Amino acid sequence: MTDAAILVIGNEILSGRTHDVNVPYLATQLAALGVPVAEVRIVRDEPAAIVAGLDALRHRYGYVFTSGGIGPTHDDITSAAVAAAFGVRLERNAEAVRRLAARHGAEALNPARLKMAEIPAGARLIDNPLSQAPGFRLGNVFVLAGVPSVLQAMFETLRDELRAGPPLLSRAVTLAVREGDIAERLAALQDAHPDSEIGSYPSFGAEGPRVAVVARGRDAAALDRIAAEIRALAAAAGADVIATD
Amino acid sequence: MTDAAILVIGNEILSGRTHDVNVPYLATQLAALGVPVAEVRIVRDEPAAIVAGLDALRHRYGYVFTSGGIGPTHDDITSAAVAAAFGVRLERNAEAVRRLAARHGAEALNPARLKMAEIPAGARLIDNPLSQAPGFRLGNVFVLAGVPSVLQAMFETLRDELRAGPPLLSRAVTLAVREGDIAERLAALQDAHPDSEIGSYPSFGAEGPRVAVVARGRDAAALDRIAAEIRALAAAAGADVIATD
Repeated sequence: MTDAAILVIGNEILSGRTHDVNVPYLATQLAALGVPVAEVRIVRDEPAAIVAGLDALRHRYGYVFTSGGIGPTHDDITSAAVAAAFGVRLERNAEAVRRLAARHGAEALNPARLKMAEIPAGARLIDNPLSQAPGFRLGNVFVLAGVPSVLQAMFETLRDELRAGPPLLSRAVTLAVREGDIAERLAALQDAHPDSEIGSYPSFGAEGPRVAVVARGRDAAALDRIAAEIRALAAAAGADVIATD
Repeated sequence: MTDAAILVIGNEILSGRTHDVNVPYLATQLAALGVPVAEVRIVRDEPAAIVAGLDALRHRYGYVFTSGGIGPTHDDITSAAVAAAFGVRLERNAEAVRRLAARHGAEALNPARLKMAEIPAGARLIDNPLSQAPGFRLGNVFVLAGVPSVLQAMFETLRDELRAGPPLLSRAVTLAVREGDIAERLAALQDAHPDSEIGSYPSFGAEGPRVAVVARGRDAAALDRIAAEIRALAAAAGADVIATD
């Protein structure tokens, strides 16, 4: 099974000013492709932080997806950091220059825009259907833009090359109950189904306490059986089923 | 300057099913207290992953805030993992038992609920004004709930004990321009203001390209000067100023 990690590069996320939406997008898409995301790190726009995060993740997980830091400005340092992590040079990529010239006009290719064509040696370009400035793949690392619409457009071009497995499926049953009233029954249910992962997520709203019990795995029939057992468990605990999905 | 890291514990975030809101909340609150968040990790509900993340972060940053995994169910393993990381025992905390009994009634304190009173030896309880089950502080690690309303209520009780500094401030000026047309001017601006951090965040909407230029630092007067220089830079580049905040 191939798993994945995500490395988000961005002071704007760490400051709280920008709410990341790339992690839930990538996590959802990769789960559907059968590639579970096992870890996420968010680091500052600093070469040492990016290199350390990348090296920790790329040796541990099947794929690493990075988000952010490949634009034309002084704070866009991801490409240089990836080159440093892999011990290769940045080099002017002729195809990337061609794409940028096609979009902006050759006369607009100032040094800042040409920085977006500086790609680590040995990397393969990732198409950017929205604004042309490419991402790239080097080894098991996929370097994507931080702008969500651009990241998503880039990811769409990658689907066919990812080693996919059976999709990661889930069944959720939401109950009107406090977690503490069903916790022992849920533990027994998890013990009875070691090949599925059963999670319990409480919330507290105006309607009273709720618990979403979520079963995850790759076997749809097994998950359907677990969902039925969750409903039976709820009935035994006197808890109403509020929703299933 | 004291900095901080956040460790989010939760398969539900990594699956993409739940969108984390605790990172932006904590990041915003800590920035206002003058404690910059320097790194975030999101790890699975697995003891080794939690211990590894905690040990990496607690030795490197001034504070670590964890989110998730302190409820009554089988997948709530954060307290045990924190105890393991610090090499201390989990022990039944009498005050935590008292709070849980006050909320649920002593007769409802089944083994699952009593698990929420198992606290690492030497830890100090963090109040939970919403649902009583406490968090705890051990060394520089603050263990908080994953439910956002509970995490926020817990954090409110901590403000006075955090070593705060001058708040981290920001000024944002949004321009109608492509990043590549102002990148060289922004680099010069950053060079002229090494004590502030100048970030550039593009977006592409129906109205055309936008760039939010954000200056961050602790000196309000310096940030105001930078904001004025960003507006001057925009005028020189022929770019309209869309918004300032």
